[in-house]
Amino acid sequence: MAEEKRRYFSTPIDVKHGIIDLTHGAGGRATAQLITQVFGKYFSNPILDEGHDGAFLPEIKGTPVVSCDAHVIRPLFFPGGDIGSLAIAGTVNDVAMCGAKPLYIAACFVLEEGFEIAKLEKIIESMARTAHEAGVQIVTGDTKVVEKGHGDGLYITTTGFGEVIPGIHVSGRLAKPGDKVLISGSMGDHGMAIMSEREGLSFGSKILSDSAPLNTMVEAIAAAAPHVHVLRDPTRGGLATTLNEIAAQSDVGIMLNEASIPVHSDVAQACEFLGLDPLYVANEGKLIAIVPEDEAEACLAAMKSAPHGEESAIVGTVTDEARGYVQMTTLMGGVRMVDWLNADQLPRIC
Amino acid sequence: MAEEKRRYFSTPIDVKHGIIDLTHGAGGRATAQLITQVFGKYFSNPILDEGHDGAFLPEIKGTPVVSCDAHVIRPLFFPGGDIGSLAIAGTVNDVAMCGAKPLYIAACFVLEEGFEIAKLEKIIESMARTAHEAGVQIVTGDTKVVEKGHGDGLYITTTGFGEVIPGIHVSGRLAKPGDKVLISGSMGDHGMAIMSEREGLSFGSKILSDSAPLNTMVEAIAAAAPHVHVLRDPTRGGLATTLNEIAAQSDVGIMLNEASIPVHSDVAQACEFLGLDPLYVANEGKLIAIVPEDEAEACLAAMKSAPHGEESAIVGTVTDEARGYVQMTTLMGGVRMVDWLNADQLPRIC
Repeated sequence: MAEEKRRYFSTPIDVKHGIIDLTHGAGGRATAQLITQVFGKYFSNPILDEGHDGAFLPEIKGTPVVSCDAHVIRPLFFPGGDIGSLAIAGTVNDVAMCGAKPLYIAACFVLEEGFEIAKLEKIIESMARTAHEAGVQIVTGDTKVVEKGHGDGLYITTTGFGEVIPGIHVSGRLAKPGDKVLISGSMGDHGMAIMSEREGLSFGSKILSDSAPLNTMVEAIAAAAPHVHVLRDPTRGGLATTLNEIAAQSDVGIMLNEASIPVHSDVAQACEFLGLDPLYVANEGKLIAIVPEDEAEACLAAMKSAPHGEESAIVGTVTDEARGYVQMTTLMGGVRMVDWLNADQLPRIC
Repeated sequence: MAEEKRRYFSTPIDVKHGIIDLTHGAGGRATAQLITQVFGKYFSNPILDEGHDGAFLPEIKGTPVVSCDAHVIRPLFFPGGDIGSLAIAGTVNDVAMCGAKPLYIAACFVLEEGFEIAKLEKIIESMARTAHEAGVQIVTGDTKVVEKGHGDGLYITTTGFGEVIPGIHVSGRLAKPGDKVLISGSMGDHGMAIMSEREGLSFGSKILSDSAPLNTMVEAIAAAAPHVHVLRDPTRGGLATTLNEIAAQSDVGIMLNEASIPVHSDVAQACEFLGLDPLYVANEGKLIAIVPEDEAEACLAAMKSAPHGEESAIVGTVTDEARGYVQMTTLMGGVRMVDWLNADQLPRIC
């Protein structure tokens, strides 16, 4: 490129005081500056750096898996994470829950005019950090800007690709009577972190979102419990809604044991205060594994040893009674239905 | 699923008079209704219908290609298309411009509270129609809803996957002196259709957007001109900006011939009225092919015979002079620089 042109594009962007304006999404010089100086600085990798409109990927060996999520969480920064870490972890987890190893991410940004570039940089850095933890590469992207009042700072859409781990075949339709139901830790952290932050509530300690990539845990499960039947992350609607979906899809009953379900005391306290049930509150760094009984202990050990899995527990059993329904032995020793959520769920939780 | 539950989810959604509310994005019953009764009705295919969070794809044989776009066009409906047809065609074209056959699309929706479901259905139908024309399947998706005043009706992000056509290797870095520059038709139609609609201008006939999938044309080019060096679609910034990018990336000069560049008379008239140059105005259904001189005529014939390519033309030559710059022999016989766009480009054109 002629030296004159090089200068033309290398004008440094004002990261500290700059704000997003409509030109940053118009595809011209400002867009190029934003992409090279903010996105490129953190996301750099050989595939992205090619600078094509599309990315050429290395060969995908197993069955390819793709999953996408639009992230509209409010607020953008919350205890335990931000929209950037959430967007990467959420999509990594969706791919991993297909029994797959996530490899690549495509990321699209809808920025609102007036958004501070310094905030954007923090979010980009957070995406890069989470992608690094998960071992995935951000290979392509797109940025658009909408006028003030037509967005909410930033929306991020992430699409993830991966390949199924050899020998693993999971589906919400594969739960079998006799299987054990495992979860990888405490329920309701993400939803209550967001709600406490929005409502300005404080419950002694700060409740942190559990947002985290779970692909390493899935690889550990695949090795320890190769006949795993179901992997799912209990996000919107929480554990109760996700298990109801599985019970319906697999045409089985599920019997939970309330005493074995971990819930942090500050989350339980916040839920009680707000009249919520933690089993219906969103998680962003937890998974459900449903495995044959003879692989349950090995699966539990693998989950406990994996990152973000210390509090894993066996919480229930798949049955051939009350097919399509989830029930729970309560702390009091009775049995109650754990129905689909009837009330409205919290909007913009992810 | 128990009959009771089946009824619970099969309550018909009011497509004619319904509006989007926050529950449609919360992941519960309303989301399920919207997905099955509106999206599922038009997008149905065996991969999507599996209903996983992620989609399992058939084996991808060639080099995998991925490309993504956030679509924030305003207005949502415009002469010649809508945000739905644009979102599919735009992403199909980005994948195709990698010399690839597009196969699958992931689509994410950010809906604004209050958006009419009838409008959404029109857009979904339009996406399905364009996907059908392009021969691609919509395999997975996500829907979120934001409060009134935090969106603009609907934003759609599409991510496309495909496989490189065997033997084809294109890149913006591969233009060589002596190559011919071809375009697949008239310049500026999309941008002027949007601008006329926004400004309420009328120029005799209605200007229609050229938005269209070009993957069949790319397959025809690959067969007729297997040594094609560059494929690009001149979207934001138009022909001039895209050629400048190629000239810089390939470190070559490009000499255009103004007389050979097709511009519809109503577009030329509208551009003159608004003080714009059609070479800088966005296209959404046109491509640039840069091919060795000895394959140029075969490439032109293939483009003219392909859908959307009737007005294809050879419009310039790659040179080893003035490397990094685009110049043009004008209608008056002089030579002028065709520089990068200095002025702001039209926001929210795609």
